[in-house]
Amino acid sequence: MKAWEKNIRKVVPYVPGEQPKVDDIVKLNTNENPYPPAKGVSRALLEFDSNELKLYPDPTIEELKSTLAEYYGVNVNEVFVGVGSDDVLAMAFLTFFNSDKPILFPDITYSFYPVWADLYKIPYECPKLDENFMMVKEDYYKENGGIIFPNPNAPTAICNDLGFIEDIVKNNQESVVIVDEAYVDFGGESAIELTKKYENLLVVQTFSKSRSMAGMRIGYAIGSKDLIKAMEDVKYSFNSYTMNMTAIKSGVEAVKDDEYFKETKKKIVTTRENTAKSLKALGFDMTDSKANFLFVTHKKYAARDIYEYLRTKHIFVRYFNLPRIDNYLRITIGTDEQMEKLIKALEEYCEKAVSTS
Amino acid sequence: MKAWEKNIRKVVPYVPGEQPKVDDIVKLNTNENPYPPAKGVSRALLEFDSNELKLYPDPTIEELKSTLAEYYGVNVNEVFVGVGSDDVLAMAFLTFFNSDKPILFPDITYSFYPVWADLYKIPYECPKLDENFMMVKEDYYKENGGIIFPNPNAPTAICNDLGFIEDIVKNNQESVVIVDEAYVDFGGESAIELTKKYENLLVVQTFSKSRSMAGMRIGYAIGSKDLIKAMEDVKYSFNSYTMNMTAIKSGVEAVKDDEYFKETKKKIVTTRENTAKSLKALGFDMTDSKANFLFVTHKKYAARDIYEYLRTKHIFVRYFNLPRIDNYLRITIGTDEQMEKLIKALEEYCEKAVSTS
Repeated sequence: MKAWEKNIRKVVPYVPGEQPKVDDIVKLNTNENPYPPAKGVSRALLEFDSNELKLYPDPTIEELKSTLAEYYGVNVNEVFVGVGSDDVLAMAFLTFFNSDKPILFPDITYSFYPVWADLYKIPYECPKLDENFMMVKEDYYKENGGIIFPNPNAPTAICNDLGFIEDIVKNNQESVVIVDEAYVDFGGESAIELTKKYENLLVVQTFSKSRSMAGMRIGYAIGSKDLIKAMEDVKYSFNSYTMNMTAIKSGVEAVKDDEYFKETKKKIVTTRENTAKSLKALGFDMTDSKANFLFVTHKKYAARDIYEYLRTKHIFVRYFNLPRIDNYLRITIGTDEQMEKLIKALEEYCEKAVSTS
Repeated sequence: MKAWEKNIRKVVPYVPGEQPKVDDIVKLNTNENPYPPAKGVSRALLEFDSNELKLYPDPTIEELKSTLAEYYGVNVNEVFVGVGSDDVLAMAFLTFFNSDKPILFPDITYSFYPVWADLYKIPYECPKLDENFMMVKEDYYKENGGIIFPNPNAPTAICNDLGFIEDIVKNNQESVVIVDEAYVDFGGESAIELTKKYENLLVVQTFSKSRSMAGMRIGYAIGSKDLIKAMEDVKYSFNSYTMNMTAIKSGVEAVKDDEYFKETKKKIVTTRENTAKSLKALGFDMTDSKANFLFVTHKKYAARDIYEYLRTKHIFVRYFNLPRIDNYLRITIGTDEQMEKLIKALEEYCEKAVSTS
């Protein structure tokens, strides 16, 4: 090791997710939306005057914040916007989790929570989901430095109702509770309403799934003005300009087209339910998904084998080689056509497996 | 204070820079480029297929990195790209400055250095610029946990030559040395060449000034593959997707149009030299600027008074109420027309000041 290398931060190197470059692939591995963004997004980009780019963007992101505030029926000072919900969540960890007590999040959940905790030297504990992958709310009634969980959870797809969320918040008035609602638009109930009642509740959402804008990197948080001010203060203190002009302008248009938003969500939910039925007919078990993906396991065949087989057919789903979930697959809901290809490939797999067993 | 507020990170709240909303202003306060970005930028946005936005952007940012690598004659694994140079610099602090020894940067310099150091709990020391605002290279020959300085420095506008930079790097083979070249394209010499000789040297640049793209948030770093890999590992470990698709595509086009780039830089340098002459004729002293701004002081009139007067004329320049530089103004180089308005207003100010004294 060279002398100057000894002060470099050591991390576990990340291997970027598969972005296969073949043309005919069915990409069901990163929970993207199969439909394009609202038409206004395309219009906003077409009409954008690139001459404006010479100036810095509005650091307060007022236009997008006020559009979101109006849509969700909150005040503009109750909205925070960032470069994807990863940016928003990382900022929330940095702002709110400064206790010596451990923060709490489920043992099976979004893989970046322990990463951000380590990054900011935040101690954490991970209550176990029960044998049906359900959160046990009483596990979150002990002393803690903060709480975070996704609802629906990922990759389990399981959603808790608002009563469950409220119980956790009510029992944790001394901590900040963060509900990560990346997938809530596909059948869950948002806790945004509860932010009006509980000043210590922060709800985080994203444009990457239900608004078909993963490529634009927009996430946001909604909470009491005190929570939002604390996040803004931290953000401004070290990076004033984060959202570029095209993200701000196109984000506004995506929110404005509520009809298209509802229509797209509905299509995905319908496809999900049909896919679930077909998979069950093939012998798959699954959790009750309220997300844009299914979390499935097969009675007879190993998840890893199915995953490998689908790859050979250019169908990409997600396999996690992790304790408790290493016999599960996470399958993104695509178009009906994509899901038919998946089902067809799985039918072939099951037939083949039968004939060779 | 409410119970849940006690674990919130305390920061000095930031007051966003003036973004005056009147129409006829002359905005010379944030070092933006007065000219539009290259034509290819506008074309890239017009031709962008917003349907692509449903997918995540390429996390490796390969297209933009390889374009920059080709332009600067380095390898693609020697380039890091981020959301503006603030993002790149913050990531570099996090990655490289993990020693218990203090990092070193000048007492008068970019205001975010101490902020990032505090954020990541990095100790620091600030050698004083001499009475002419020059860095004293021997001040950087002592034990340290890393070194960072802008070249040209901001807000002093003073540039050091490559021999000076190389001496500092040569004398600090046990640390990472970062040269922040936000303003280097306006007359300075880039240290990128030196990165081929010194594995511990990182050079950071931005699209916000010389490429007229402050509104798009693009910054980058060039250094040895070991330095870049360390930054990428840290970045990927907690936020995989940072650059949105429009930033990647328009950034590529900006780099490709070298002719326009050179033409714009030349115009700004010419305007700077003419403005400097006019200001000297009005009794201003100034440093030798190699940036897109001038750092000026008047023999007779207080900087603060001039600043306030210009505001009343809707001309915005930057005043820092800080030790040693509180009688200076930082004036961005705009178009010839904008600078003529500035000079005219200053002529009026000087006449008025004479007649009322």
